Amino acid sequence: RQTLYDVIFEADSTLGRGFDIALLVAIIASIVLVSLETVPEYGLQRDPKSETPVSTLATWFWVLEWFLTILFTIEYALRLYCVRHPLKYAFSFWGIVDLLSILPSYLALFVEYSAKSFVILRSVRLLRVFRVLKLWRMMSQADELADAVWKSREKIIVFLAVVLVAVTISGTLMYQIETVLMGSSHESDFTSIPQSMYWAIVTMTTVGYGDVVPHTTIGKIISAALILLGYSLIIVPTGFVSAELSSKLVTTTERHLCSQCGLSN
Amino acid sequence: RQTLYDVIFEADSTLGRGFDIALLVAIIASIVLVSLETVPEYGLQRDPKSETPVSTLATWFWVLEWFLTILFTIEYALRLYCVRHPLKYAFSFWGIVDLLSILPSYLALFVEYSAKSFVILRSVRLLRVFRVLKLWRMMSQADELADAVWKSREKIIVFLAVVLVAVTISGTLMYQIETVLMGSSHESDFTSIPQSMYWAIVTMTTVGYGDVVPHTTIGKIISAALILLGYSLIIVPTGFVSAELSSKLVTTTERHLCSQCGLSN
Amino acid sequence: RQTLYDVIFEADSTLGRGFDIALLVAIIASIVLVSLETVPEYGLQRDPKSETPVSTLATWFWVLEWFLTILFTIEYALRLYCVRHPLKYAFSFWGIVDLLSILPSYLALFVEYSAKSFVILRSVRLLRVFRVLKLWRMMSQADELADAVWKSREKIIVFLAVVLVAVTISGTLMYQIETVLMGSSHESDFTSIPQSMYWAIVTMTTVGYGDVVPHTTIGKIISAALILLGYSLIIVPTGFVSAELSSKLVTTTERHLCSQCGLSN
Amino acid sequence: RQTLYDVIFEADSTLGRGFDIALLVAIIASIVLVSLETVPEYGLQRDPKSETPVSTLATWFWVLEWFLTILFTIEYALRLYCVRHPLKYAFSFWGIVDLLSILPSYLALFVEYSAKSFVILRSVRLLRVFRVLKLWRMMSQADELADAVWKSREKIIVFLAVVLVAVTISGTLMYQIETVLMGSSHESDFTSIPQSMYWAIVTMTTVGYGDVVPHTTIGKIISAALILLGYSLIIVPTGFVSAELSSKLVTTTERHLCSQCGLSN
Repeated sequence: RQTLYDVIFEADSTLGRGFDIALLVAIIASIVLVSLETVPEYGLQRDPKSETPVSTLATWFWVLEWFLTILFTIEYALRLYCVRHPLKYAFSFWGIVDLLSILPSYLALFVEYSAKSFVILRSVRLLRVFRVLKLWRMMSQADELADAVWKSREKIIVFLAVVLVAVTISGTLMYQIETVLMGSSHESDFTSIPQSMYWAIVTMTTVGYGDVVPHTTIGKIISAALILLGYSLIIVPTGFVSAELSSKLVTTTERHLCSQCGLSN
Repeated sequence: RQTLYDVIFEADSTLGRGFDIALLVAIIASIVLVSLETVPEYGLQRDPKSETPVSTLATWFWVLEWFLTILFTIEYALRLYCVRHPLKYAFSFWGIVDLLSILPSYLALFVEYSAKSFVILRSVRLLRVFRVLKLWRMMSQADELADAVWKSREKIIVFLAVVLVAVTISGTLMYQIETVLMGSSHESDFTSIPQSMYWAIVTMTTVGYGDVVPHTTIGKIISAALILLGYSLIIVPTGFVSAELSSKLVTTTERHLCSQCGLSN
Repeated sequence: RQTLYDVIFEADSTLGRGFDIALLVAIIASIVLVSLETVPEYGLQRDPKSETPVSTLATWFWVLEWFLTILFTIEYALRLYCVRHPLKYAFSFWGIVDLLSILPSYLALFVEYSAKSFVILRSVRLLRVFRVLKLWRMMSQADELADAVWKSREKIIVFLAVVLVAVTISGTLMYQIETVLMGSSHESDFTSIPQSMYWAIVTMTTVGYGDVVPHTTIGKIISAALILLGYSLIIVPTGFVSAELSSKLVTTTERHLCSQCGLSN
Repeated sequence: RQTLYDVIFEADSTLGRGFDIALLVAIIASIVLVSLETVPEYGLQRDPKSETPVSTLATWFWVLEWFLTILFTIEYALRLYCVRHPLKYAFSFWGIVDLLSILPSYLALFVEYSAKSFVILRSVRLLRVFRVLKLWRMMSQADELADAVWKSREKIIVFLAVVLVAVTISGTLMYQIETVLMGSSHESDFTSIPQSMYWAIVTMTTVGYGDVVPHTTIGKIISAALILLGYSLIIVPTGFVSAELSSKLVTTTERHLCSQCGLSN
C-alpha cells in the first residue's frame, strides 16, 4: 500500500515517473478527444436523435473515450485506497477534480437522447474537459505559483479596481460621444454602456479585436488619447505585480551580504 | 460626532468596516444600474415622450435608483456634518465627487421630457457614472499610486512627446504612400492624416483594431518596418517608467535590517 | 548677441523659457493645421484647379499657416545670426530640421496648381510635418534617450535578426499550409510570402490586425502554436533590452557601498 | 587550408569580415528572391504548364537564383574541405542547414513540370527559405541566447502548461455559452472547441485578430472577465522568464570591482 502510494503520489522512483508520463499522455489524449468531437465537419459527436454512431471513426472515438474513463476510474479508486484518510481526500480539491474527470461519462448514460435534453447532455459531456486540471497537480512549481498569486492578491484587487474605474468612465464617455455624433443614423458600434465597457477592456489590455471601433473623427481622437492614457495607466499595476515577483525571486536566489558586518543575511 | 467621523472616514472599527462594505455594494449596484439602463434590448430607460415607465422591471430600476440616490445623499450630509470644515470639504476633490454622485438624479427631475432635451437629459443621467470615483477613495494604496504617477510625470511627458513625434511622421508617411499607390480608386483606409495618426497610435501600442490597414504591398512592407521600429521605440520609455516604479518599490519595501547585526543596510 | 543666444538656445532665464513655450505652441498648432487640412470633409485644402480657397475657414488656415511659416523663418534667421559658426549650424541635424520646417511653404509657391503636379505639391506641403522634430530638441532627456538606444544597437540588431529568421520560416510555413489546404477555391488570406511575413510580424508583435487570418483548422492549430512560440521568443530580446536599460538606470541613480571596504563606489 | 578556415569560420581578419558581409548580402538577396517569386501580380514564378519563363524579369530572377545557388554550393564545398572532420560537419546542425540551402534548387530540376506535381515542386522550391538559418550562425550572441532559452526550459514548460489549462477551460466555457445563447440561428463564431481554444490563445496573448468574437451580452461580460484573468495570469510566467534573464544578465555583466579597494563585490 505504501509502495502504491509512492508510485501514484511521488515521482521519485522509476515506476512513479512512468506512471506520471502515462497519466500525462492519457490527459492530453482525453482533451484532444473532447475537443475534436465538437468539430461539426468531422461528424464525431453522436446524433441526439439516432442511437447509432455516425461513422466508424466516431465508434473508435467512443471506444477510446470509455477506455480513458475506465483508466481514470481505476486511478481514482487506487488513490482513494492508498491514502490514509479516503474521505478527506475525496472532499479535497484534487479529489473533486478526480471525481469530475470520470463522473460526466457515467452521467451521460442516464441522460436520455432527446432534442430537449441536448444542451444538458452536451454540458455534461463537456465537463470532461476539467480533466485538464489533473495536469496542474503534476507540476512541481504549481504550489509556488499559486502561492505567488495568493500573496499578491491585494495588488491584483487594486489592479482590478483601477481598471474598473478607468473602464467605466472611458466607456461612458465614448458611448455618449459616439451615439450623439453619429446622430439618428444609429450605426455606432457603441450601442450601450456594457458594450462600451467591453470595448474599453479590450482596448486597454491591447487585445483590440476591432469588432467595436470609433467611427467619428472626434471619437477617434478621444479614443487615441484614451489608448495612450490607458496604456500608461495599465503599466502601473503591472509594474507592481512584476516587481513583487522579481523581488520574491531575488530574495530566494540571492544571498545578501550585510554591508555593516559582512555576514550573510 | 467624533464617533460618526471614525465610522465614515476610518476603516479601523467593526462599524467602520461595515459602513465601507455597504458603500462598496451600493456603488457597484449603482454602476450596474446605470449601465444596464442603456442596453436597448432590456427596455429599462424611460421613453422621453411618455411619462410612464416601459415595464415592471423599469419601475423596479427606478425605485432602486432613487433608493441609492437617497442613500448617497444621506452619506453626503453626514460627511458634511462630521468634518471640522464643511465648506473646505465641499470644495475638495472628494466633496465634489460626492456631490456629483447625487446631483444628476435631482437635476433630471427639472429637465422636461421632450425629444429636444433628450441628449441633455441622457448626458445628465450618465453623469451618475462618476459615482465609481467613490471607489477610489476606499483604496488605501490609491495615494501611493497617484504619488508614483505624479513623480514620474516628466518621464510620461517624454513618453508622450516620443510617441507624438513617431506617430506624426509615420502617420504622414503611410498617408502619402497609401493614397498615391492606391490611385484614383480611393479605397485607401488612410483617408486623412488624423486617421493615419490614429492608425499609428493603435498600431504602436499593439492594440491593432484592424479597421485601418495598409492594402498595397509596399504599404505593408513599410508598415511592418514601422511596427518593428515602433515596438523597439516604445520599449524605451516603458522601460524608464517601470524601472522608476521598481526602484521606488525597492527603496520603500527593502529597508532590510541585517539579521546578524541589526543595523540597516 | 550673447543674450539672444541664451534666450533661443538655453531655457534657464525667464525669457528663454517663454521663448520655449511660444515655440512649443507654434509647433503643435502647425502640426494640427497640416493634419486637419487633409480631412476631406472639412474642405480646408485648396482645390488644385481653382485659385480661390474653398471656404472662409480655409482662408483663415492659409493666413495662420503663413503666419507660422514667417515665425519659423525669423527663428531660423535668428539662430543662424547668433551661433558662432552659422554654416556649421546650417549643415547640422537641427539646422536641416529648421530649414525643412520652412522650405516646403515657400517651395509650394513655385509648383503650379495643375492636376499633374497634384501629388508633388501635396508631398511638398506634407513635408511641413517635419516641424514636429523641433519638439525633440526641446526635450532635455532626448540626448540620454538617443544615447541609450545607440548603446543597445547590437542587441537591437540581434532582436531584428531573430525576428527576421522567425518571421521568414513561420511565414513560409503558413503560406504553404493555407494555400494547399484551401485548395483551388483561392480564398486564402496568405496570397504570397511577403503577405505571410507581414502576417507573422503583425502576429508576433501582438498587434493582430485581423486582415490576414488562418481559415483552416490545421492552419489555426499551427498558427496558435506559432503565436505561443513567437510570444516566448520575443520575450528574450525584449528582456535583454529592458535589462540593459534598467542596469543603466541603476548605475546612474544608485550609489553602491562596497561590501569589502564600506566606501561608496 | 588553415587560412581558408580562418576566413570562412572566423570574423577576426579583414578577409574574414569581408566574407561574412558578402554572405550576409547573398542570404538576404536570396530570401527577397524566394519571397517576391510568390507574389502573383509580379508574375515571377514559372508557369507549371509552359517551359518558358513568363517575363524578362522572371528570367533575371532565374539567373540570379542560380548564381546564388552556385555561390552557396562553393561555400558548402569549401567548408567541407577546410574542416578537420568533413563527415562530422556534414551531419552537424549547420552542415544540414548548408545542404538544405542548396539542395532544393537542384531537386527542382528533377521534378517534372506538371499540374499534379505543382504542390510538391513549390514545397521543394520554398525549402530554399531555410537559407535564412545561415544568418543565425553569424550572430555571436546566438549561442548565449540559445543557452538562456535552454536553461529556462522548465519555466517555459510551466508557462505552456498554465496556458494549456487556462485555454482549455475558458475555451470550453465560451463555446458552451455562445452556442447555447445564440440558439438555433447558428451564427456563433465559436463553432467548435478547437476554434474556441484558438480564440482563447489569440485573446490571452493580446494578439486579438477579431475573426472570432463573442456576440451575446453575457458572452461579452464573461469574455471581458476572462481577458482580465488571462492578462493577470500570463504576467506570472512572463515575469518568471524575464526575472531569470535579468538575473543571468546581472551576474554576467555586473561583476563590479570596487573603485576604492579593488576587490570584487
